[in-house]
Amino acid sequence: MFFEGSEKKIEVIIADSNVRLRHLGQPFWAGIVACANAEILSSVSNDYCDAYLLSESSLFVWDDRFVMLTCGTTTLADAVMSFIDHVGEQAIAFASYQRKNEYLSHLQSSSFKEDLTKIRQTVTGNAYRIGHLDSHHHYMFSTKKPFIAPTTDVTNELLMYHINGAAADYLRGVDQSAQGIRDLLELSVLFPDFIIDDFLFEPFGYSINGIKDESYFTIHITPQEKSSYVSFETNLNLADYPVDVYGKLLGILNPGSWDVIGFNSPRNTQGFPEHLCLGSCSLATEQGYTIDFSHYQQLCHEVLIPEYL
Amino acid sequence: MFFEGSEKKIEVIIADSNVRLRHLGQPFWAGIVACANAEILSSVSNDYCDAYLLSESSLFVWDDRFVMLTCGTTTLADAVMSFIDHVGEQAIAFASYQRKNEYLSHLQSSSFKEDLTKIRQTVTGNAYRIGHLDSHHHYMFSTKKPFIAPTTDVTNELLMYHINGAAADYLRGVDQSAQGIRDLLELSVLFPDFIIDDFLFEPFGYSINGIKDESYFTIHITPQEKSSYVSFETNLNLADYPVDVYGKLLGILNPGSWDVIGFNSPRNTQGFPEHLCLGSCSLATEQGYTIDFSHYQQLCHEVLIPEYL
Repeated sequence: MFFEGSEKKIEVIIADSNVRLRHLGQPFWAGIVACANAEILSSVSNDYCDAYLLSESSLFVWDDRFVMLTCGTTTLADAVMSFIDHVGEQAIAFASYQRKNEYLSHLQSSSFKEDLTKIRQTVTGNAYRIGHLDSHHHYMFSTKKPFIAPTTDVTNELLMYHINGAAADYLRGVDQSAQGIRDLLELSVLFPDFIIDDFLFEPFGYSINGIKDESYFTIHITPQEKSSYVSFETNLNLADYPVDVYGKLLGILNPGSWDVIGFNSPRNTQGFPEHLCLGSCSLATEQGYTIDFSHYQQLCHEVLIPEYL
Repeated sequence: MFFEGSEKKIEVIIADSNVRLRHLGQPFWAGIVACANAEILSSVSNDYCDAYLLSESSLFVWDDRFVMLTCGTTTLADAVMSFIDHVGEQAIAFASYQRKNEYLSHLQSSSFKEDLTKIRQTVTGNAYRIGHLDSHHHYMFSTKKPFIAPTTDVTNELLMYHINGAAADYLRGVDQSAQGIRDLLELSVLFPDFIIDDFLFEPFGYSINGIKDESYFTIHITPQEKSSYVSFETNLNLADYPVDVYGKLLGILNPGSWDVIGFNSPRNTQGFPEHLCLGSCSLATEQGYTIDFSHYQQLCHEVLIPEYL
């Protein structure tokens, strides 16, 4: 029943305004997604963005950029290499490749180091790991090009581990429905007026994409009891947002530990349950992103239950 | 410069008093050690025990039992299978195989699950994991045989991660010596009257075995800055011991986090630095061992330093 929820992520921004990524069309993107060993399940669009729900996570395409997240044992580095081969290295203003620590990294088809070797054959860039290898950590590669992101280019990522309580029980249960999960997560309160597209996997697992103008959010739920993982990501500026999204999600899902990764979004623990911040890092990159990584755990002694093998 | 300090461990107790393990001789044990892809560097003996210092950790042999620890990418499950093939499954009263979480598990030649499949082809037993996969955890297999350990059969393991400060600097430095490390760890205070055997690796890394009557202690130091690991293990009953060994070692080495595993040795945090216990588990086995696992972190917010790759 094990499934690796932890995602790899690529973001690419195009330098050449003659290339319009949405014009490349769904068959093109299906090909890129296939390079990662994933497939497109469904999509929604508005005037700015095509949002694809994938068999493993999500792809968002705007005219000048795309963001793709894939979980499981997908090979996302191959997808980004295929994309760069197609448009040419010169057409890229900025590209990043991220990888979160996996529950079972030995089951992955490559390590971050191997991915890095492959990517650096085509593009030069900086790479680093934030966080200790024996705890939550986060790998990132980004291109070294004369690109400066505006401070309004914000991304917020909330990664939740070991969810507990009534919501977790519901998400692992046999009576769940997509509408039931939307209600559970209070998505109509958190994200009113977003066009949404969601999918309930068998026997459980849930993905949702939401778009509104140029904004997106996405949630992926891997509820498996011994290795649960729920990720939330958005380009909304949560500091200005009328609802405390992180506080609400943490309250509902009650994770034992969670990580927050912010790009141009300073650390803010308002609304968090009682916690210890096990470690954090703030890093300013040459490309104008200030990246904040922090790893939290609930402030209570956990009685561990042995897993019999 | 990466080296995997985390150990695998086997312990075997012999049922047949006609088999005297020390009589099997060093060439036999060298063969068993070779099955794990390690080799014997040196040895010391007393009336009860032969203690071998290995290229990767340690082997202690008494007449009725042995304990072997190996780190790096050694294949210790192969060593235990070779031993059981030699003496016969019926000669075994009790056998256990443990494996700590590795820093880089994908570099190991097998997973615990794969080791388990191999071991279970010859011996039946229970196996479990204590601790979450995304944090410190500990795998254990033990045979299911009509053996009951006496409550005096005690083992204490202290596993220290991310050592800091003057001792860590010394252990990573170019001017270290075996005597310097013995003094640093105050071994003559902690373990007076033990026969010791130690080895300083190049460019750094240190192992020591100590024996006194039927008692042993062993310390293995992997000081590498981004993946430091120091393990201490003994069959001394630390609850009755005149010196606070754990408090002393934690004070000197100042690890960011540490695990304690006790067999018939209840959890005791006396002498520990200010900490949070991130999780713990107490488990009584059919063989009469009460196993306590607990994972600690210093009670201070750690500013993480990115590691450039």
